[in-house]
Amino acid sequence: MLSVEEARTRILGALEPVGAETVALSEAWGRVLAAPVQARLTQPPADVSAMDGYAVRAADAVEGTRLTLAGTAPAGHPFPGSVGPGEAVRIFTGAVVPAGADGILLQEDADAAGQSVLVKETVRAGRWIRPAGLDFATDETLLPAGHRLTVRDIGLAAAGNHPWLSVHRAPRIGILATGDEISLPGEPVGPGGIVSSNAHALAALVRAAGGVPLVLPIARDDVDAIAEAGRAARGCDLLVTTGGASVGDHDLVQKALLPEGFKLDFWQIAMRPGKPLIWGRLGETPLMGLPGNPVSSLVCGIVFLWPAIAALGGRPNLLPPLRPARLAEPLAENDKRAEYMRARLSTADDGMLLAAAFPKQDSSMLKTMARADALLLRAPHAPALAAGAAVEVIVLSELGL
Amino acid sequence: MLSVEEARTRILGALEPVGAETVALSEAWGRVLAAPVQARLTQPPADVSAMDGYAVRAADAVEGTRLTLAGTAPAGHPFPGSVGPGEAVRIFTGAVVPAGADGILLQEDADAAGQSVLVKETVRAGRWIRPAGLDFATDETLLPAGHRLTVRDIGLAAAGNHPWLSVHRAPRIGILATGDEISLPGEPVGPGGIVSSNAHALAALVRAAGGVPLVLPIARDDVDAIAEAGRAARGCDLLVTTGGASVGDHDLVQKALLPEGFKLDFWQIAMRPGKPLIWGRLGETPLMGLPGNPVSSLVCGIVFLWPAIAALGGRPNLLPPLRPARLAEPLAENDKRAEYMRARLSTADDGMLLAAAFPKQDSSMLKTMARADALLLRAPHAPALAAGAAVEVIVLSELGL
Repeated sequence: MLSVEEARTRILGALEPVGAETVALSEAWGRVLAAPVQARLTQPPADVSAMDGYAVRAADAVEGTRLTLAGTAPAGHPFPGSVGPGEAVRIFTGAVVPAGADGILLQEDADAAGQSVLVKETVRAGRWIRPAGLDFATDETLLPAGHRLTVRDIGLAAAGNHPWLSVHRAPRIGILATGDEISLPGEPVGPGGIVSSNAHALAALVRAAGGVPLVLPIARDDVDAIAEAGRAARGCDLLVTTGGASVGDHDLVQKALLPEGFKLDFWQIAMRPGKPLIWGRLGETPLMGLPGNPVSSLVCGIVFLWPAIAALGGRPNLLPPLRPARLAEPLAENDKRAEYMRARLSTADDGMLLAAAFPKQDSSMLKTMARADALLLRAPHAPALAAGAAVEVIVLSELGL
Repeated sequence: MLSVEEARTRILGALEPVGAETVALSEAWGRVLAAPVQARLTQPPADVSAMDGYAVRAADAVEGTRLTLAGTAPAGHPFPGSVGPGEAVRIFTGAVVPAGADGILLQEDADAAGQSVLVKETVRAGRWIRPAGLDFATDETLLPAGHRLTVRDIGLAAAGNHPWLSVHRAPRIGILATGDEISLPGEPVGPGGIVSSNAHALAALVRAAGGVPLVLPIARDDVDAIAEAGRAARGCDLLVTTGGASVGDHDLVQKALLPEGFKLDFWQIAMRPGKPLIWGRLGETPLMGLPGNPVSSLVCGIVFLWPAIAALGGRPNLLPPLRPARLAEPLAENDKRAEYMRARLSTADDGMLLAAAFPKQDSSMLKTMARADALLLRAPHAPALAAGAAVEVIVLSELGL
């Protein structure tokens, strides 16, 4: 059995980023840049006022002096002349500081009457002036390639004058649930059958990771049905199967796909939940076979599928971040398999994250997976830990999961 | 000037959740439930095997005994008979445990040859059997109303047999940028003009908060243009303006909208960045006027607009969560306004979050807003703090911002 780390290295090593597409800035939130975004202008483009007030020559604007109003400079309407000795120009936040002026007399520090402005507080040169380029200069790299665009990055790319952005297209991830026992929600459930939850949960995970899911019809436990579904997935960047991966007589996925050109890389990982995990290639298409248990399927989805989609989408070697936490309750020693325990998070009095693993970790219990805030990691052969011991967790909300 | 807390209380108190719509489970990720999701079945529906192996009577399955193979029970194909004394039924993970059996002999603890199964490890009654209802029972509430659906919740709702879900429709948020100095990205920029970044950054923020943005054309600094834009926004659940809110002669938003029926509640908040913030109602439509500075606009968007969209979308009184952190560097004392400082986060050796405020906090510097991981909160009149002091931060990635 492979370690989680080795399996992940082999998975990520086999994936290439998909190509780029052009999207409108307004559609680019959450997308991954395929090229850096460089500033197309300098911001601010000239020295501008940071406040409403009067543009003045600082040397003239001494407390008690009266200046003569020479004009007005609203934002977007620069004053065409220059500020001469003893003069002031009414100015507003964001407006270009007129030639000649080197300071701003704040509105609340002035008494204006007709054409006369009384200085009530001496002005310092440069004060309340934003110099040209304070935020950024033309050709400066604002955002690097491989970066997933936040809300704030959209603002920055707009300010840099980019109506269009080059982003990686969203990787298309085929999702194939297999099994005679499963039905789609709302459809008739056979005797001993259950409702399929994996495909739609994984589809949401694919979206959260930046991919586009393609949910294929459920394939019965039948070589021909699975082989046909495999053929249908040729247009995907990655095919994910769920179910049919374990050691019993009913592991059909490998059997069905071998004649379709499936090349297996590995299929067992020393982890819990989720030991059976197929990784290989169906023709050109990478294939990840996740376990059928809903919790195993989601945990393996977080540990392996999430970084695989990130890598396909232009963010290579990005792993779900591990955050330090303290145990709220003791944990027994671990066996030879890495364990990802469902846990609740809270905050200790001193501000540290506290993680409490659910007492029952059965991989069929989806409700505790939904109630969890984090996955608590236990290394293979980790010793028993007392309450308060340091552990690492994957915070699920941080990944949008 | 109002405090941030009082302003937020007045904003949230004025908002009612929008109505519900029915969406397919596959479109429900990130939506907010308008009704609880109750289990429509019991899961597992009967006692099922947790492993591949043999269903046996535990009393018979003592190490060294040979049992007679009586049949097979794959998942989805329950064994129709019952397991008699001295018998075993081949069973697979997830399959219903046949009548008569009360334990599972693991595959690796058995030697099967023809119709004979040798028990190599004594079986304990109940071991490796998942009892009916282990995950949930019919009519149990799986997910409450007002809950925003995670990836895992989609799986749980599917397992509970829900093809459709009742969710709050996404609140429609009109966004109106005003100003003579601003142009859309890629369009001609006038002398002293800048490229408008607020509208599209706020549109992305609206999406992250679960709303649908409607970006209105830029309104020039002109009473008629703003009044007309105000009329166009009547179909929105909330109208957000940006720019034109400050104290200068050019605050046109209030002036333009008064004849359109605008009722002001308040317009100044004791915070930085972002002092000018209009809150009121234009006819039936709540109106939030954000400052024109890009950083002020985003910070006020996080502090006021994000919870307003949550409240409209069915999550009342939800505020951006505050996380404890320690200061990486000392901070000077604060004045009378609450401050939201852009900060980077790292992790200290002991696992605590470390927050370092950017040295320059000018509200026109969007690049530092894009580079920030968090907003670091300083209460009004907060004393000077040494490095290592406890502070609170809003972690931006946690909100998808």
